Amino acid sequence: MRATLMYGAGDVRVEQVPDPVIKLPTDALVRVTASCICGSDLWPYGSMKPEDGPARMGHEFIGIIEDTGPEVTTVDRGDLVVAPFAISDNACQFCREGLHTSCAHPQAGFWDGEADEGGQAEAVRVPLADGTLVKLPVEADSALMPSLLTLSDVLGTGYHAAVAGGVNERTRVTVIGDGAVGLLAVLSAKRLGAEQIILMGRHQARTDLGREFGATDVVSARGEEGIEQARELTGGNGTHVVLECVGNMPAYEQALGVVRRGGVISRVGVPQYEDAPVGFGSLFRHNIRLAGGPAPVRAYIEELMPDILDGAIEPGKVFDASTDLDGVPAGYRDMADRKTLKVLINP
Amino acid sequence: MRATLMYGAGDVRVEQVPDPVIKLPTDALVRVTASCICGSDLWPYGSMKPEDGPARMGHEFIGIIEDTGPEVTTVDRGDLVVAPFAISDNACQFCREGLHTSCAHPQAGFWDGEADEGGQAEAVRVPLADGTLVKLPVEADSALMPSLLTLSDVLGTGYHAAVAGGVNERTRVTVIGDGAVGLLAVLSAKRLGAEQIILMGRHQARTDLGREFGATDVVSARGEEGIEQARELTGGNGTHVVLECVGNMPAYEQALGVVRRGGVISRVGVPQYEDAPVGFGSLFRHNIRLAGGPAPVRAYIEELMPDILDGAIEPGKVFDASTDLDGVPAGYRDMADRKTLKVLINP
Repeated sequence: MRATLMYGAGDVRVEQVPDPVIKLPTDALVRVTASCICGSDLWPYGSMKPEDGPARMGHEFIGIIEDTGPEVTTVDRGDLVVAPFAISDNACQFCREGLHTSCAHPQAGFWDGEADEGGQAEAVRVPLADGTLVKLPVEADSALMPSLLTLSDVLGTGYHAAVAGGVNERTRVTVIGDGAVGLLAVLSAKRLGAEQIILMGRHQARTDLGREFGATDVVSARGEEGIEQARELTGGNGTHVVLECVGNMPAYEQALGVVRRGGVISRVGVPQYEDAPVGFGSLFRHNIRLAGGPAPVRAYIEELMPDILDGAIEPGKVFDASTDLDGVPAGYRDMADRKTLKVLINP
Repeated sequence: MRATLMYGAGDVRVEQVPDPVIKLPTDALVRVTASCICGSDLWPYGSMKPEDGPARMGHEFIGIIEDTGPEVTTVDRGDLVVAPFAISDNACQFCREGLHTSCAHPQAGFWDGEADEGGQAEAVRVPLADGTLVKLPVEADSALMPSLLTLSDVLGTGYHAAVAGGVNERTRVTVIGDGAVGLLAVLSAKRLGAEQIILMGRHQARTDLGREFGATDVVSARGEEGIEQARELTGGNGTHVVLECVGNMPAYEQALGVVRRGGVISRVGVPQYEDAPVGFGSLFRHNIRLAGGPAPVRAYIEELMPDILDGAIEPGKVFDASTDLDGVPAGYRDMADRKTLKVLINP
């Protein structure tokens, strides 16, 4: 079959690879019908060393079950399923607490831990199929497909930012980042009833979509100027919650600048730093909390799916381009160049 | 009158200073009947440069109102009052949310912001007396005085650690640090019903008091060995909450080592660092949260005082030495040498 491999920074190729096969009795084999490129794929696209490659790419997909191992009981051949970006057994103590990204099962983990698998391909072997996969009650050609695909990562990640930040009807929220995760963090904050949602981002087509998703204000300035503008919108105090959906140090510093005393910075953008200011001069002085991490999107699928099925939310609007597998390398390039927001793949 | 001044590291003196006087209509003048030395006083005692001194010391005290400005309405001459370590108006939006250490009033702040005042003295001018001071329903010679004095800082600080960490009946807790704050964090976690309380500390007299306050386990080893022992006590997972009551980097690293996936590190020891690990390899990977800050002890006084008055808790047991003002320099030395846990001052 054909699959996407990254050979190094800026070097993505679609190549012939061995067909995946069932290896363990808990595996399922999924023929991919829709997948996509993630903002987090752009980090290695910008910096991956050739000696670390080639790596199979893709961790968000929907597909049809082609085969299952003998111990798989909750999904069956022919089922249309969505796969979260983390493999989990949905049964351990962490999964039962809704923290599927910290599943204790030895086979649990992220897709990049599966050297021979990736969602930007024709097919995928899915470990722990019962825990990982969720059946979709539609056909593979449903018009809802883009929105349902966001359940695999980007919607659940935006939602996790808002949940981990404790967003409710009494909170003012700043969202840092107008990427797909940031925009769906806006949608999530709106869904949880936030009183005010300030979206910080520079790309008007994106911030316009952010307004459609529920942003009450947009701040396009960055750095100190952006911080000042955001604070002005809140009477000077900053917002109770900041959803940091980028992951680099400028975004973290921006979050420190706009968070209210006693507030919380909720991070879902994978940090591109290890150390950061957390001492008296940053978090400690005013009891500012730090929350977030890899989103346990599996925990949110049952909660969010009905809103997609009944049209209450349309998170699939973050896809502004689509391609077949041949177009995936160009899809990476366009996303990296910010020509496109998020690329849907129909293999 | 006489007051305590720090001239530099290791150099504490008791000297004659001008008597405090009412300066603003919201001030009160308090004749100190009991005060104490704080663990946080030991940071400058270890490192203060002479050019930064001399500094008036002391931010925990009980005393009798001698005079009040014309706008003071809630306390009156002759009242016995306790002063929290932060001055606040108890009226602004932050105070109303229970975050008195972030009070928005221009006169609010910590005692070290009041250059001519300090609790380790015969008398103190207290700004924002209505907001800051709380009346005590006992006489100044009450046997409850040591415990009531802990309401000014150390009990409220331990309690804040537990509250900010979200301790409840379903949480296992690790307390890092067997200083007075750590021990009262144990007491606080017990009061909030924690399922398990592991106290990490090396001084047996202190950890014995920790057991009396509610610690279910004590780990005296440090570093990797201590982390391993604490994790073993939890079936390998670590604890949901870690109350970090020290404030240096080894304590932070210990907290990272013993916190459970999805758990929270709640800090109340003033961080002696600004940057710390918070990225994928430390907090982010498993959605570990960071909480805490300067305790809004004013917010907890009404809640905790009844437990002291009826004898349900005896936080005053953290005082294992007492002195008059003359003995304060020796009191600092003994605490720094860990000969004493916490020194009560009867000026």
